[in-house]
Amino acid sequence: MLVLFTDFGLEGPYTGQMKAALLGEAPGVPIVDLCADLPPFDAQGAAYLLAAYQAYFPTGAVFVCVVDPGVGSARDAVIVEADGRHFVGPDNGLLAMVVRRAQSASAWRITWEPEHLSSSFHGRDLFAPVAAMLARGEAPPGEPLSPDTIDRKDWPDELARIVYVDRYGNLVSGHRAAGIDQAQTIAAGGRTIAHGDTFSAVPAGAAFWYANSNGLIEIAVNQGRADTELGLGVGAAFGIGS
Amino acid sequence: MLVLFTDFGLEGPYTGQMKAALLGEAPGVPIVDLCADLPPFDAQGAAYLLAAYQAYFPTGAVFVCVVDPGVGSARDAVIVEADGRHFVGPDNGLLAMVVRRAQSASAWRITWEPEHLSSSFHGRDLFAPVAAMLARGEAPPGEPLSPDTIDRKDWPDELARIVYVDRYGNLVSGHRAAGIDQAQTIAAGGRTIAHGDTFSAVPAGAAFWYANSNGLIEIAVNQGRADTELGLGVGAAFGIGS
Amino acid sequence: MLVLFTDFGLEGPYTGQMKAALLGEAPGVPIVDLCADLPPFDAQGAAYLLAAYQAYFPTGAVFVCVVDPGVGSARDAVIVEADGRHFVGPDNGLLAMVVRRAQSASAWRITWEPEHLSSSFHGRDLFAPVAAMLARGEAPPGEPLSPDTIDRKDWPDELARIVYVDRYGNLVSGHRAAGIDQAQTIAAGGRTIAHGDTFSAVPAGAAFWYANSNGLIEIAVNQGRADTELGLGVGAAFGIGS
Repeated sequence: MLVLFTDFGLEGPYTGQMKAALLGEAPGVPIVDLCADLPPFDAQGAAYLLAAYQAYFPTGAVFVCVVDPGVGSARDAVIVEADGRHFVGPDNGLLAMVVRRAQSASAWRITWEPEHLSSSFHGRDLFAPVAAMLARGEAPPGEPLSPDTIDRKDWPDELARIVYVDRYGNLVSGHRAAGIDQAQTIAAGGRTIAHGDTFSAVPAGAAFWYANSNGLIEIAVNQGRADTELGLGVGAAFGIGS
Repeated sequence: MLVLFTDFGLEGPYTGQMKAALLGEAPGVPIVDLCADLPPFDAQGAAYLLAAYQAYFPTGAVFVCVVDPGVGSARDAVIVEADGRHFVGPDNGLLAMVVRRAQSASAWRITWEPEHLSSSFHGRDLFAPVAAMLARGEAPPGEPLSPDTIDRKDWPDELARIVYVDRYGNLVSGHRAAGIDQAQTIAAGGRTIAHGDTFSAVPAGAAFWYANSNGLIEIAVNQGRADTELGLGVGAAFGIGS
Repeated sequence: MLVLFTDFGLEGPYTGQMKAALLGEAPGVPIVDLCADLPPFDAQGAAYLLAAYQAYFPTGAVFVCVVDPGVGSARDAVIVEADGRHFVGPDNGLLAMVVRRAQSASAWRITWEPEHLSSSFHGRDLFAPVAAMLARGEAPPGEPLSPDTIDRKDWPDELARIVYVDRYGNLVSGHRAAGIDQAQTIAAGGRTIAHGDTFSAVPAGAAFWYANSNGLIEIAVNQGRADTELGLGVGAAFGIGS
């Protein structure tokens, strides 16, 4: 299975061109769009989402990960293998949390070069062909790296800020809920937000925080939009109180 | 064929996680995104759309239907078989019109339980695995129900309000056009709107109603946006005059 | 490979219904969404995008192309074969630039008629079944046309206006970059915009033009949105100075 995790958007031409490249090089391998609307340029936020989401995919899956404001610059292109899944992308922190949380990880700097490499679309020209090689069972086309170099030591283990707003206006954070007591509250946007078990457990219109289906702290409003009603969006930091 | 009919959005992580679940349990079965941007929480409006759209799919298709504001509450999860197609979803009215209009229908309350059921994402954890079982040809994993309990007796046969606004700004209703004379007019937003055969049959900028490609009454403006030009959106009721 | 190039949107019901039709008639042929959010009704702009994008697809690919404000009117439905790829769509100029730039091209007027043809959704009822026939290796179901009749002689070889705004706010034009010297500037919206090699080669916030990954002139702002910062959108014309 090939999995796309990008800020390219689904509708424009980029995701389609990625898929044509993948289908050409790894015919018959199913392709799943995990996320195509990651906040542009926010590699850090995406890193915490990726670490949470990837756990729900089968081992053997190959993730093509592109949030890459530095495309065309000197940043490396890398492959990570973590607990049986492969990840291909820029070495800008996007794969950092996958590496940090893995039981076992390996990494490679991609040395393979395509015949034609555009300066602005490494997703199509470089990452997709490399992911297709891995999906075909080939060895990583690069030189080994220490996984430690992929990690970002200065990033926290949990990211207490909003990293994604979903279609319902729910505010997804980069902070896991495990270890946070349900009696604790979230302080965000000048408000104190209590825990709720489910949407239907709080009154319509009430804000609450809960452990979302991927184990992350999420702030929501039952039958409302937390983003507009709380005035919060991607980048908003919060505190966890007691 | 597996068909997704949800309010999850395509771009965020939910549809991708659904597909990973389906691919894992029913490999090789094609997956079609019928609609991912149903108006959130509007199970009634979606019910009339589903009844119209499903007729264009082959028998044997399995629909995963999720517009589910009550996820996590006590509402049942059900399977419906109607005229050779299967539908999996919450028992909140979403499948009501499919049942009511079917020549023959059966229903089951889902009793199968996944190893891990999140409180907020039954689409991934419950409905997708059950749909995969049906796509593999297995028996419905539940106990038989009377299809009558799926129907909503208090809902009208035709829903004379807007239930979806498409990318062009066209206003799709839950009312079928069959049986409505072309001499009749629609009264909506303080205006009287006459019938037009096709977009190109009315002047640019003119509003008209017509039988859309799925048999529903739709209000459009030739080469314009009916939503903004008429000031109408999801939920707007209309009358049918003579 | 079947490729969808439309203004239907991905999320609403139209693309899904197209795919169900394609899967039914050409099972097993992969379907790629190249673009579903072409600016509505702008067949001319889409024609220049199609000519640029299609070159990155393998020979044998069959493109279903629909930007069709005249659906339901008397415009013809056509098939073009250009340099080994097939294109199915309305004869409204959408396929003009593919024909003009092809080394060799053939064309047919579609004479096949479906059992049921809706007046507003030829994509599902006519173009998809015909594309499926071609993908299955069947002969074009129509009568030969001179490719010259598909071309639009009054359209320029290069279109110096914005034809698409991508998710990042980058302004994609219908003008190829080949032959334009990097010393030349773009005059747009009252500003003079110089060339930049890559996003990372210009300061954050700076506007620049560059040859995008499909060979077209594109105007961007490094880590910003060119559309809002320059006040430009689809339809905006520009000059190329020296």
